[in-house]
Amino acid sequence: MSEFDVKEHPHRRYNPLTGDWVLVSPHRAKRPWQGQVEAPATDDIPHYDSSCFLCPSNKRITGDINPNYSKPFVFTNDFAALHQDTPAAIRNDDGLFVMESERGTSRVVCYSPDHSLTMPELSNEQIAAVIQEWIAQYRELSQQYAWVQVFENKGAINGCSNPHPHGQIWACTSVPTLPAKTDESQRQYLAQHGKNLLQAYVERELADGARTVVENEHWLVVVPYWASWPFETLLLPKTHVTRMEELSSSQQQTLADILKQITIRYDNLFQCAFPYSMGWHVAPYSAQYQDESARAHWLMHCHFYPPLLRSATVKKFMVGYEMMAETQRDMTPEQAAERLRQQSPIHYKSVQK
Amino acid sequence: MSEFDVKEHPHRRYNPLTGDWVLVSPHRAKRPWQGQVEAPATDDIPHYDSSCFLCPSNKRITGDINPNYSKPFVFTNDFAALHQDTPAAIRNDDGLFVMESERGTSRVVCYSPDHSLTMPELSNEQIAAVIQEWIAQYRELSQQYAWVQVFENKGAINGCSNPHPHGQIWACTSVPTLPAKTDESQRQYLAQHGKNLLQAYVERELADGARTVVENEHWLVVVPYWASWPFETLLLPKTHVTRMEELSSSQQQTLADILKQITIRYDNLFQCAFPYSMGWHVAPYSAQYQDESARAHWLMHCHFYPPLLRSATVKKFMVGYEMMAETQRDMTPEQAAERLRQQSPIHYKSVQK
Ligand SMILES: O=P(O)(O)O[C@H]1O[C@H](CO)[C@@H](O)[C@H](O)[C@H]1O
Ligand SMILES: O=P(O)(O)O[C@H]1O[C@H](CO)[C@@H](O)[C@H](O)[C@H]1O
Repeated sequence: MSEFDVKEHPHRRYNPLTGDWVLVSPHRAKRPWQGQVEAPATDDIPHYDSSCFLCPSNKRITGDINPNYSKPFVFTNDFAALHQDTPAAIRNDDGLFVMESERGTSRVVCYSPDHSLTMPELSNEQIAAVIQEWIAQYRELSQQYAWVQVFENKGAINGCSNPHPHGQIWACTSVPTLPAKTDESQRQYLAQHGKNLLQAYVERELADGARTVVENEHWLVVVPYWASWPFETLLLPKTHVTRMEELSSSQQQTLADILKQITIRYDNLFQCAFPYSMGWHVAPYSAQYQDESARAHWLMHCHFYPPLLRSATVKKFMVGYEMMAETQRDMTPEQAAERLRQQSPIHYKSVQK
Repeated sequence: MSEFDVKEHPHRRYNPLTGDWVLVSPHRAKRPWQGQVEAPATDDIPHYDSSCFLCPSNKRITGDINPNYSKPFVFTNDFAALHQDTPAAIRNDDGLFVMESERGTSRVVCYSPDHSLTMPELSNEQIAAVIQEWIAQYRELSQQYAWVQVFENKGAINGCSNPHPHGQIWACTSVPTLPAKTDESQRQYLAQHGKNLLQAYVERELADGARTVVENEHWLVVVPYWASWPFETLLLPKTHVTRMEELSSSQQQTLADILKQITIRYDNLFQCAFPYSMGWHVAPYSAQYQDESARAHWLMHCHFYPPLLRSATVKKFMVGYEMMAETQRDMTPEQAAERLRQQSPIHYKSVQK
């Protein structure tokens, strides 16, 4: 029998943030695809679209009119999944039919007035303005809510119903399932190893380099060792930062730079507006974490979960086995990192021009 | 402030099998959809397709020729995610870069030689033959593997690359992430409450009826209280059965009947071949569960996770918030159950004829 080779042989990897495993089947990247193909994102989007409910000065479905904004513009989602004034319900807790009412809010963040742009096409200054808006939102919403989820769904394939560059912020009273797990895993790791989980991870990745996609003075982007999605990445600070409000102005500048760098490489990979869901995990705003020392186990980080697998039109389906048993991937995280790392730092559209 | 109303107000429900919560936003079903629409499944599929690698007597990509089968036909996947002869790897366990090699196999189960049919269009006898084949596979694969995952991906929208009626079976040495959680949850519930979790649940659902879709002598189908997908269902036996091999021949007959009944209602809901991922969870075949008494905490069950939300072309996207924070749904499980329950027990295609 031959020797085990991580680039050849099926194996499982463990995600220390969630406690889940992922099945890696490197050889499977060779299988042909005869299934569904997606419509690629169109490149010729106008700077202004009169039917877009996010463009400046347009009327929304509620009748509200957007301001003629030039900087990032935030409003409450017209069809919010969470409401501020939900009446309290008695929590039923017999172990089988457990429920509790939930209060929160859900907001839309328009990154730019220009309908045609996406994150990698914004200037560093424009991305920095989005970061400043996120920070302002964290400050405001954390007064009332324990969890503030900043995220972006990009691309029709990813459930985004409007190409206008925008993200969302949902805030709520309880810490949701996934961040609650991440919080717990980081807490336990610090207790067991006397080290911050993600800081220890950053250190190892910086020393290794096999999964590094791009880095700058303050930030590192890797395809994590336990990545689920084919080109999933994890964006991490190089120093101990638990929340976005703690970033110095120079860390904000370099964060804008690294966001542009990773999203340019994504777009260049398949020469398309690369779809993804992106989201930040920062230390919860629960009362017990008010003291910085109580957040020692946390490192803020950002996940990119892009669905594409082989091309602009063929995605990875997380279906049967993934839904019933365990996530499965078709190439190693190291192979994915290498392909992303090799991409040009210049956006393919500006080369074409 | 008004009183809390489960049909109106955002709330979270707890899944006792996984430990995850789901955010329910009932009011959100009203929001308009301007995003991606899917191509509906075509209804006019031929009985035989010469380019199909699952039809009888056809040549597969490997050069192998399918037999001229008339009963369910099983073969090893030509692009299996798992292999029987993977060399053992030393398990690395420093808490950050944890991996282990994994052995297994992955098989394809053709339900019928007829390319055009789907589960709800098979006769009870033909579905019973599929059940018998599943049982034979469980018996064989359990000799070697601790976990045997029987599942089906149906519909192009759901990553299925071929409409020929078929499912898959992946077997492996380790118990994967999700069944491991389900196993643990059932074990803990029995220890704490002195009752089998899912049997206690069946009892409550039978007494209530609000989430019941269909039932027969031995089986119950409900939209579970904690459903994630809009029309997710859970199929449960009414007596204590931990594995499919334990089913009496009459329980196998009624299982065929209930599988036909639920899938007919699915197809009738949006008058289309309703896409889903379906999969069985049965007690693992790990050595410690050889004794029936050691499996007292288990109840075998089957999950249906269908992606459609509003119509044959508009699905639920599990993206940003769902990937980063918590699953979110737009109507209550009770509302979904009512709509499924109201469907005719006669398949829409046989009415049209
Ligand atoms: O094996 P198939 O049907 O070609 O592949 C499909 O099902 C597998 C198991 O759920 C998934 O891993 C794949 O992403 C999906 O495309
Ligand atoms: O709010 P949107 O962008 O219309 O909706 C999209 O993102 C939400 C949050 O991730 C999801 O719950 C929806 O399924 C998706 O279609």
